Amino acid sequence: MLQPPPAEPGMREEEVDTPALLIDLDAFEHNLDTMAALLEPTGTKLRAHAKTHKSPVVALAQMRRGAIGQCVQKVAEAEALAWGGVPDILVSNEVIAPRKLARLAALSKIAKVAVCADDERGIAAVEAAAEAAGIRMTVLVEIDVGSGRCGVEPGPQAVALAERIAASPHLIFGGLQAYHGSAQHKRTPEERRAAIAAAADGTRRTVEQCRQRGLACAIVGGAGTGTFALEAASGVWTEIQAGSYAFMDADYARNAEPPPFRQALFVLSQVMSAPRAGVAVVDAGHKAMPTDSGFPLVHGYPGATYARAADEHGTLVGEGLPGFGEKVRLVPGHCDPTVDRYDWYVGVRRGRVECLWPVAARGAMA
Amino acid sequence: MLQPPPAEPGMREEEVDTPALLIDLDAFEHNLDTMAALLEPTGTKLRAHAKTHKSPVVALAQMRRGAIGQCVQKVAEAEALAWGGVPDILVSNEVIAPRKLARLAALSKIAKVAVCADDERGIAAVEAAAEAAGIRMTVLVEIDVGSGRCGVEPGPQAVALAERIAASPHLIFGGLQAYHGSAQHKRTPEERRAAIAAAADGTRRTVEQCRQRGLACAIVGGAGTGTFALEAASGVWTEIQAGSYAFMDADYARNAEPPPFRQALFVLSQVMSAPRAGVAVVDAGHKAMPTDSGFPLVHGYPGATYARAADEHGTLVGEGLPGFGEKVRLVPGHCDPTVDRYDWYVGVRRGRVECLWPVAARGAMA
Repeated sequence: MLQPPPAEPGMREEEVDTPALLIDLDAFEHNLDTMAALLEPTGTKLRAHAKTHKSPVVALAQMRRGAIGQCVQKVAEAEALAWGGVPDILVSNEVIAPRKLARLAALSKIAKVAVCADDERGIAAVEAAAEAAGIRMTVLVEIDVGSGRCGVEPGPQAVALAERIAASPHLIFGGLQAYHGSAQHKRTPEERRAAIAAAADGTRRTVEQCRQRGLACAIVGGAGTGTFALEAASGVWTEIQAGSYAFMDADYARNAEPPPFRQALFVLSQVMSAPRAGVAVVDAGHKAMPTDSGFPLVHGYPGATYARAADEHGTLVGEGLPGFGEKVRLVPGHCDPTVDRYDWYVGVRRGRVECLWPVAARGAMA
Repeated sequence: MLQPPPAEPGMREEEVDTPALLIDLDAFEHNLDTMAALLEPTGTKLRAHAKTHKSPVVALAQMRRGAIGQCVQKVAEAEALAWGGVPDILVSNEVIAPRKLARLAALSKIAKVAVCADDERGIAAVEAAAEAAGIRMTVLVEIDVGSGRCGVEPGPQAVALAERIAASPHLIFGGLQAYHGSAQHKRTPEERRAAIAAAADGTRRTVEQCRQRGLACAIVGGAGTGTFALEAASGVWTEIQAGSYAFMDADYARNAEPPPFRQALFVLSQVMSAPRAGVAVVDAGHKAMPTDSGFPLVHGYPGATYARAADEHGTLVGEGLPGFGEKVRLVPGHCDPTVDRYDWYVGVRRGRVECLWPVAARGAMA
């Protein structure tokens, strides 16, 4: 069920019901402005990834600063954005299920929509859905530039799929999806540079081989918050797909030379039990904040460590802990799946609630 | 946003849209019947924990088999149950925020409601809310019987809180909350027996000390799926709070002498990319299934391992993998936070969808 909003505009932050997903609006706006300023001189465009924020409100704030559209991973995310007024959406992922493709084809009547493929059977499925809907769908070929997940090898295998798309009567070949996910979290700048240099080589080669077959790559998309400056400087990618930059998280902050953004996303929690000295139990555990990238940091309490999570509890230990009843900002380990736990963002500026934004694509996994 | 149901009654399982939360109804009913049969001769009652299932439909199925009520951890969960017709609900957790307590007090007009406390300030907050609502609220004292989380020490500290509750004009002392969470997942039966024997000693002593002060413990609640038989046999606990037994998960299955229940909960996923030999990528990652208790098992594919999770992807490796487009049942590592990711249960029996149940308290963290 949709949960009621945990706050009202004008409230003080300490009055917000917990757990709640906070955006520090000053930091958030700084992050959006910073990304726009960094990309502007490169000529590379931003197509921000909505898998992070899942919100047309955030998407439109990014587009007001120059983003040309949005990426999503799921058809249900594309729906939430298009219904909220986002005009240009790339599903940066394979979609092969007929039921999902029928929804995507229907959506293309209200927004510019594109999708990825890495298999002839996938291309045939998109062609069938586009034909049934009486439209032409833009399809990108995903290449594996180092993540070892989806995507074919750069080079001839990718070119063959591009030709297959171009030869399909209801499809348009849109270019390449070339995202190196694991490079984002490599800890040293040297490792990140080496990973993106190799990705650029394979991508450049594939673009050139497509061109030789008369196939232009209108979009070459990829990059995330940990490496976007490298892709933007390469001259290979046309669009940057960063998402986390808007919010940041504890894991990105652990990179050496971390991305130049401020922590803007928090889970506000409350100490609801303090039964022994040196222990404070907060009301935010596994259900409030996935721990796949480690436990959250305790903002503003340098001696406190979030040491243990249960489904509904987090145990803080250390020195100078928050007291019984105090509200505490936690910095999530991993922003994307944390956002997806909440129905509402609570936007806060200088201690006051300024806005409530629905997480419109919360749970949009289809 | 509430997501649309991923299936319709009568569909074949292969037609269900993915990712989806499946209940194998035969296994689920077996589990409910088994728990009822095991507890019946002990005289200990079942107050099943709805933090696992978050559904009045499941709660009422448990109560038709003899469960006397439900536990929850959160006020918003209590609301979802009471609105769905569950008449007797224990919040097996501390609630201290006035806004939450006002909601709980209002709820007590349509259901029998009780809550826990482990601090005088918490008791004062419940008293204030009960007075404001013009009701009397039942409060249990939580004791720490080994989990090291919430709860005061067994013995005099607990008795002092019980007396404080009994002396509050709008409160009723309801007994003790004595749950040993970490004992559920201790791997050997010897470790589990030792943990619950120690918990029983402290609990028995506290009940007796309360009795000596004229305070009867009408409820002594605790126990989970990993140890309930021990608590039920002890003669100390009056109510068993198991939740996971209805569904099971990969983590409980790793216990030596695991609980006598069948795996009834699955995440149905689809292979949406198979770009290289020995790799199949499914459409269920961190957002579909928290990994705090390890990656899921791949049901029915003994040579396949779920080796890596991304936000929206899972990478299967090994021998005899499911092919491109195939639907695959995954066994979640940890059932409670997995359920909380979905808006719908899809109930399946012998390959056909039989029912859709809303996860009514999905996201109910307040």
